[in-house]
Amino acid sequence: MMDPLVSNPCSPVLDLLRQLHDSLKGVSDGEVATYIPELSKADPDAFGICLVTATGTVYEVGDSQVPFTIQSISKPFVYGLALEDNGRGPVLEKVGVEPTGDAFNSISLEPGSGRPRNPMINAGAIAAAGMIEGRGLASRFKRVQDMLSDYAGRALPMDESVYRSESETGHRNRAIGYMLRNYNILSGDPIQAVELYFQQCSVSVTCRDLGVMAATLANRGMNPVTGRQAIRGQYVENVLSVMGSCGMYDYAGEWIYNVGIPAKSGVAGGVIAVLPGQVGIGVYSPRLDARGNSVRGIRVCDELSRHWDLHMFNSETSGRSTIRRKFTGAEVNSNRVRTSPEMAVLRERGDGIRVYQLQGNLAFATTEVLVQEVMQNFEAIHQLVIDLKRVQTLNESACRLFWLTVVKLAESGKRTVFTHVDRFPLLRRYFKVKLGDRADELFRAFEDNDLALEACEDQLLSRALPARTTDHRVGPLEFDLCRDLTASEVDLLSVCLVHKRFAAGDTIITAGDPAAELYFLVRGTVSVLMVTAGGRLSRLATFSPGMTFGEMAVIDRAPRSATIVADSEVECQLLSLEALDGLRQSAPEVCIKLLTNLSRTLSQKLRKANRELSVLD
Amino acid sequence: MMDPLVSNPCSPVLDLLRQLHDSLKGVSDGEVATYIPELSKADPDAFGICLVTATGTVYEVGDSQVPFTIQSISKPFVYGLALEDNGRGPVLEKVGVEPTGDAFNSISLEPGSGRPRNPMINAGAIAAAGMIEGRGLASRFKRVQDMLSDYAGRALPMDESVYRSESETGHRNRAIGYMLRNYNILSGDPIQAVELYFQQCSVSVTCRDLGVMAATLANRGMNPVTGRQAIRGQYVENVLSVMGSCGMYDYAGEWIYNVGIPAKSGVAGGVIAVLPGQVGIGVYSPRLDARGNSVRGIRVCDELSRHWDLHMFNSETSGRSTIRRKFTGAEVNSNRVRTSPEMAVLRERGDGIRVYQLQGNLAFATTEVLVQEVMQNFEAIHQLVIDLKRVQTLNESACRLFWLTVVKLAESGKRTVFTHVDRFPLLRRYFKVKLGDRADELFRAFEDNDLALEACEDQLLSRALPARTTDHRVGPLEFDLCRDLTASEVDLLSVCLVHKRFAAGDTIITAGDPAAELYFLVRGTVSVLMVTAGGRLSRLATFSPGMTFGEMAVIDRAPRSATIVADSEVECQLLSLEALDGLRQSAPEVCIKLLTNLSRTLSQKLRKANRELSVLD
Repeated sequence: MMDPLVSNPCSPVLDLLRQLHDSLKGVSDGEVATYIPELSKADPDAFGICLVTATGTVYEVGDSQVPFTIQSISKPFVYGLALEDNGRGPVLEKVGVEPTGDAFNSISLEPGSGRPRNPMINAGAIAAAGMIEGRGLASRFKRVQDMLSDYAGRALPMDESVYRSESETGHRNRAIGYMLRNYNILSGDPIQAVELYFQQCSVSVTCRDLGVMAATLANRGMNPVTGRQAIRGQYVENVLSVMGSCGMYDYAGEWIYNVGIPAKSGVAGGVIAVLPGQVGIGVYSPRLDARGNSVRGIRVCDELSRHWDLHMFNSETSGRSTIRRKFTGAEVNSNRVRTSPEMAVLRERGDGIRVYQLQGNLAFATTEVLVQEVMQNFEAIHQLVIDLKRVQTLNESACRLFWLTVVKLAESGKRTVFTHVDRFPLLRRYFKVKLGDRADELFRAFEDNDLALEACEDQLLSRALPARTTDHRVGPLEFDLCRDLTASEVDLLSVCLVHKRFAAGDTIITAGDPAAELYFLVRGTVSVLMVTAGGRLSRLATFSPGMTFGEMAVIDRAPRSATIVADSEVECQLLSLEALDGLRQSAPEVCIKLLTNLSRTLSQKLRKANRELSVLD
Repeated sequence: MMDPLVSNPCSPVLDLLRQLHDSLKGVSDGEVATYIPELSKADPDAFGICLVTATGTVYEVGDSQVPFTIQSISKPFVYGLALEDNGRGPVLEKVGVEPTGDAFNSISLEPGSGRPRNPMINAGAIAAAGMIEGRGLASRFKRVQDMLSDYAGRALPMDESVYRSESETGHRNRAIGYMLRNYNILSGDPIQAVELYFQQCSVSVTCRDLGVMAATLANRGMNPVTGRQAIRGQYVENVLSVMGSCGMYDYAGEWIYNVGIPAKSGVAGGVIAVLPGQVGIGVYSPRLDARGNSVRGIRVCDELSRHWDLHMFNSETSGRSTIRRKFTGAEVNSNRVRTSPEMAVLRERGDGIRVYQLQGNLAFATTEVLVQEVMQNFEAIHQLVIDLKRVQTLNESACRLFWLTVVKLAESGKRTVFTHVDRFPLLRRYFKVKLGDRADELFRAFEDNDLALEACEDQLLSRALPARTTDHRVGPLEFDLCRDLTASEVDLLSVCLVHKRFAAGDTIITAGDPAAELYFLVRGTVSVLMVTAGGRLSRLATFSPGMTFGEMAVIDRAPRSATIVADSEVECQLLSLEALDGLRQSAPEVCIKLLTNLSRTLSQKLRKANRELSVLD
């Protein structure tokens, strides 16, 4: 379970909610429902508002912890469970989805079929209750109660006295039940469905519960406070659709037009409102208008829409922010340190390597933004890296577009590489289904961008430069650090060097150890590793023959700051600090040249780092 | 005008659209409208689909360039113009917004008031036409035609023969006009409104036009291809609301439920569908079902919803990606190079400086994510930097939350600084309105993060370290580059140095010039400037007394890579390359110490750059 994100009592959002509460608490229009005695006992002035974001922060003001019965607000949730139990088709056969323009307790069955017009009127809700799976009333109600509790994030009790009261007076609903039985919308004993309906309406909630329940719908069915899935995501759009078109009884068109937030009210004074992907709202205020909706509840929704710009059609284009960052292999390089000729190739032709870091929710319209970008640069792109690290969700439409794009690039001999795909098993599965055996060839995945970039660079370099064998070995004059040294100066240096061999996997330098020498890498490659905050070993750099490492020792004589490991069989020439100090006396000019070359190497690295900083920022 | 983004003919998105087109072109149900002879001439097999993203890419397949008349698809657009001309209240008085469940040509006036139920039925559309401003029919139609042309991004002609045909046979609509006149819904001559309605229906469009028009609604009223605003953003939600609840005639609830994309059809065979913030769709296929909707048009929308996951309630939580990046003043520093004691303060206490780079569309739910983050770290935050560079839109709700947060921080003595605010004049105005004279004090804005960070650092340093006067002057031993030099070695160096003074604003080094000396900064500050790709001067670094600059000259003897300017009155000691070469012979130990210190400085800078890279990546 995630930590519940309760709002800070000083939060400006809470201030706004308090202002809203203050501005509406004087509204005393409407009457408390009296059709059953239990409801009439409610405090008519009780008033709570709870706003919960789809990211799980809870803001509540006023009487947000006062219990009351959920009543008709249970209808969309039970309808959702009926969809999960039966699927869309069978549910649609028994309950329609058209607004009626009639009051909540109208019977509104379609002539002929007897199908209730929609699941928000009592007839439709009873028909939905009749479709809940379970052996007997108790087990069915248990499932409904558990489902509602998942939405609320706590075990919701039933108010027995309200249930008894509902059941004792609910003759009209029993009539509806028998009418539905007559049309075979309900099968078996219709009274069981009617009783389940009374029980679901008698579940006790608080305004805070309603807020969390609404936020769960706003968050594609996952309770954002507990992290628990209360309904499969695919049915959320159907639940919201019926709330949007039929939720506020004979008020549907005007509600969408003026408020534009799918909502549902209950006669005990509760209201929920859901702005998909954004917030859920719960209100409690028992005074009802003539249509049976909470007067202040409606006012709250109205104010939020009008003054907080919350309206479901008030959407900005999100596509443009799909591409978090893009860069080429000429602008940013892998942590494999390259030789000067290699760097020259990467600077000149690294432009064919394009890295796109994506973010947000990848669906059709957002993924299209990448596809369009790739197609516009089709000629220039030779290798494409798609980084999914910051992607939050990725749906099947996105998978389809990725697959088509990868195949299209492959047909022109261009490679695509994905990074950070482990969080999205759907993507790998999609490629497998579409490509079968070719999936492994076309669906290339690397753990991170650094490794992906290195692979792309290697591919480019292998075509541009003569291949180096693994036992390629460099002589003293080829070292960057030995630039400008005369042959006799090289000889002076060489006599100070000690030859050393390492096997693949050997630790050459251990972080924390005292620094005693500088390494000239003659053969093989070595990697600089560091333990990240997350405890993972991360590669800072990889060096190849002709490069030196451990040179910081020369400068500050401080302990080693990182561990260096042999990637392959490795040969080095070691220059100890004592030998260096000896050179300083006996051959200062060699020392000056080495230090000048070291400064040049450092300043080249610094320029590269600064260039990458400006690209990445 | 922006460049129109036409899709690449090889785009995978176009492939998908082609597949969809292929799979539906065999559908031959339905009949071409025949109620006027002109319509019956349409090719029943014509079939085009055009999808336009809210970012402005156009994808079209099939008969997307065949002209036909817009017919009832004009209704939501003209309704939008009526809203702009009259405002919401007056329009709502004359036309309702409730779905009727009746056919498109039903009269459906509310009993008593005579108000048409909604603007998508003919009666409501004629009432909306009656509310279009202008002197006489011609001028009114001109405004309607211009408005539709703005949506389409090209001048749309009227089909005269269709208009004549509509007018000759439109007796039922004239009856409606007189009925509306009877109820004072229309004033003056009702025939003028009816004729305007015939004319608007006779505007000639292509399927591509419809796609762009739909995308304009998806993009909050701004044509994404031309960049032109076709309707004020605030009315788009109303237009989409009536399309959503009443667009597909007696099919509203089921449409929202199954397809979930606000849409409108016309009897000539056109359909538009709008997924807010994502895509607009235009379809042309003249075969109509019994309800008067294009058979293939409905199938296209249905397929897009089912297989492309496009449903308006299928929204993922976008809030989490509001914060693109966050870092502290201990992790990333401004380009002002700090002295060692200053760096120590920043490392220790820079954590109180928090920079948040935001992105995307800032509205209530997205801005709340920042507010929540700030409130959770309230104690730790001493100075807050809010970077709006990557923000695309920012609405009034976002302004309100920013204002409240800034005031809350200020009450606890904490400062907020905004960067890149110039694109959002609304924000400054909002602070001005709310704070009056205090706005300048509380609404601090800097051009970029670097300057904002520097100001925050200065603030922190001014409280932590003794103030330096502007004529603070350092001696030779205080230079980083002179570390470990003995007094006699300093003397050897000093005789080689030449003293030089610069006035504030003087250019000390010009990029491209040959390098001839190294500068020891004795008094004042200097900045390294570089011309960015955009032609702007950008600051790479600012140095203060005790630092050296121009040292790369010592190493590679290459031309200067950047320009350095005196920020204040400046005094330097110059070490020429000749003098350095002299030292190399006469005092190699001094040279070795200088080079060792230079390497240390460079490697410290490299470590800082690498640390910032890992934070920023």
